[in-house]
Amino acid sequence: MNVVIIGSGNVANALGTVLKKKYNIIQIISRNRVSGQELALRLNADFTNRIDDVKKKADIYILAIKDNEIFNVANKITDIDGLVVHTSGSVPVNVFSHAFKNYGVLYPVQTFSISNPIFLTNTPVAIEANTKQNEKKLYRFVSEVSKKVVFLNSEKRLSLHLAAVFANNFVNHLFTLSEKILKKQKINFNLLLPLINQTAANVINPGPILSQTGPARRNDTLTIKKHLQLLKKNKEMADLYLMLTKSIQKNYKK
Amino acid sequence: MNVVIIGSGNVANALGTVLKKKYNIIQIISRNRVSGQELALRLNADFTNRIDDVKKKADIYILAIKDNEIFNVANKITDIDGLVVHTSGSVPVNVFSHAFKNYGVLYPVQTFSISNPIFLTNTPVAIEANTKQNEKKLYRFVSEVSKKVVFLNSEKRLSLHLAAVFANNFVNHLFTLSEKILKKQKINFNLLLPLINQTAANVINPGPILSQTGPARRNDTLTIKKHLQLLKKNKEMADLYLMLTKSIQKNYKK
Repeated sequence: MNVVIIGSGNVANALGTVLKKKYNIIQIISRNRVSGQELALRLNADFTNRIDDVKKKADIYILAIKDNEIFNVANKITDIDGLVVHTSGSVPVNVFSHAFKNYGVLYPVQTFSISNPIFLTNTPVAIEANTKQNEKKLYRFVSEVSKKVVFLNSEKRLSLHLAAVFANNFVNHLFTLSEKILKKQKINFNLLLPLINQTAANVINPGPILSQTGPARRNDTLTIKKHLQLLKKNKEMADLYLMLTKSIQKNYKK
Repeated sequence: MNVVIIGSGNVANALGTVLKKKYNIIQIISRNRVSGQELALRLNADFTNRIDDVKKKADIYILAIKDNEIFNVANKITDIDGLVVHTSGSVPVNVFSHAFKNYGVLYPVQTFSISNPIFLTNTPVAIEANTKQNEKKLYRFVSEVSKKVVFLNSEKRLSLHLAAVFANNFVNHLFTLSEKILKKQKINFNLLLPLINQTAANVINPGPILSQTGPARRNDTLTIKKHLQLLKKNKEMADLYLMLTKSIQKNYKK
């Protein structure tokens, strides 16, 4: 199977790397010449920065680009028969309905960064397509690189994406704030790493609801006051602390 | 060395289990007869639920009890020479200054639950004591069960505890909310486990600041609106979403 990848960011890089093991990546299209050519070189693919030069005979076209660019880029691709998919958690599949005959979505439930190559094998991928036949085709295509392919419609995919924002984006931000607190006191952030690993392990067993501990969980008002006193010069963090504390307390109220 | 443990909750259980490998646990004291006797039996220790019956000749007394009970329980223990420590992140060492000659703190930076036995070896332990000699004694005592013992004064320990609340308590609560979103749509929470593991791995490399992704990070207003629309019937979660989104955006503003 011949694959064209549009985009050269984190998702394009991660997908390209793993797809190359099973498929021919014949072309990378990206406005960014530097990252685009670099990716093309690495995947042994042609490179262009002009969407008009898209190769017409590929089997799969993957748009790994920003959510708000998917519609516009799709409308610039004409005269193709292959299956066109985007990789977004929050954009409905029908963003493509006026542009293509064969289309779908391939959403890898993972966080990708250039510095951290992810092996997609264990990454769940949510897929959707406009016909049963295209769903089958997409399923076979993705199954070669992920052991966990699931069908989700656009509505459910959006919920999954929202849940991922809580479990990754927001969680990572709390780690950032945590590091900030320690830096101010010149305490080594590494002291928290075993705790952070255990927090992730507890999600699997016994699960987050049974794993909740801490001053909010046990209504320890005195400790909460001490913490807020420490945060008195940082209104933003104090507000977050209070809101999260109240949310925990509400969750465990009888 | 002979050790008395006061308390029979998660921390008492975790500490008792690992200390037993190196020391004699001679007595468990706990108001809770069920969990206290169970722990005593497991550690081959005597049990009492009366603090007056505390054995007078132990080397170390560990108060693994609620923060707000430390002061009161300490005042009920009289005529002892051994080193008395509590295990709290947020209670200053001088809570003991009027009660004992030899005292300190031993704060394991970890989350403990009965169902998940933790091996303390990799858990950092922050210690503090009232004299250099007691610090040395406590350091030697804890070093036998943890590879990572650090000296922190009460002020720094409180900051470490606050950072741990962000990195564990609040993070775990976000996992709970994430699971809630998926349950509502009957989507399997397991789909998020590789993402959650990767989020924890990213804290080590490249670190939380460089790992931030998502709609807030890239100012993707359209996706943020879609998510808020999904949360419109849950004001509490919508408020949290907005506050965390703004906090991320503020952090990455040029």
